Amino acid sequence: MTSAHRAVAAYWAAVGARDWETLAGLVAGDVFYEVPQTRERVRGREAFVRFCAEGFPGEWRITVERAVGQGQHAASWVRWSPGDGTAQSGLSFFDLGGDGRIARITDFWPEPYEPPAGRAHLTERS
Amino acid sequence: MTSAHRAVAAYWAAVGARDWETLAGLVAGDVFYEVPQTRERVRGREAFVRFCAEGFPGEWRITVERAVGQGQHAASWVRWSPGDGTAQSGLSFFDLGGDGRIARITDFWPEPYEPPAGRAHLTERS
Repeated sequence: MTSAHRAVAAYWAAVGARDWETLAGLVAGDVFYEVPQTRERVRGREAFVRFCAEGFPGEWRITVERAVGQGQHAASWVRWSPGDGTAQSGLSFFDLGGDGRIARITDFWPEPYEPPAGRAHLTERS
Repeated sequence: MTSAHRAVAAYWAAVGARDWETLAGLVAGDVFYEVPQTRERVRGREAFVRFCAEGFPGEWRITVERAVGQGQHAASWVRWSPGDGTAQSGLSFFDLGGDGRIARITDFWPEPYEPPAGRAHLTERS
């Protein structure tokens, strides 16, 4: 297990446990969080932990599907279950600083969509 | 660079170059490709290469933003530019077989969306 893998595993364990103190210790003081889809950004440890603690009310659970770490980079695919029987995938890319803390997080939360026209003959659908 | 990292770098190089013969050599004979958002699936090397070669017409280009490999797993974040000045992010998770070939690919193509109500005070927007 690489240190980047350990960092992402610890990150999702802390988020899943709502352990905001541990989460604060895993990210850099100047952590930069971004959701390209919404163009939302959060800068700095205090603002980031507050965003995590207050931005997602409810009885959701997180399951880690994949976590990959290499050098100063890591990626994860998690399943976010809000408790109503549905689930959504979350894809996250992490850059670590020299001290092993997470310095940058880029999150994606894709939604279902219909396939483009003209490729149905090339695929099956579940 | 891990072998999983090499595999994903070679994968995007082959896709970007439309080098379908090289791509065929990088994936397992029974490769399984899936887009959870559309529920599209493609099974087997021949069908997968055909899907890549015929499913995405146009003058698009691919830029790799992040590629991470660890053991039998890899992940990438690419920017897909269709040539009209826009760009879309693609997130891919790869599982490798024992022979180093890519055995499973899970692709996500997230679209922009508006942030949920009630968290504007916790973020800025670009």
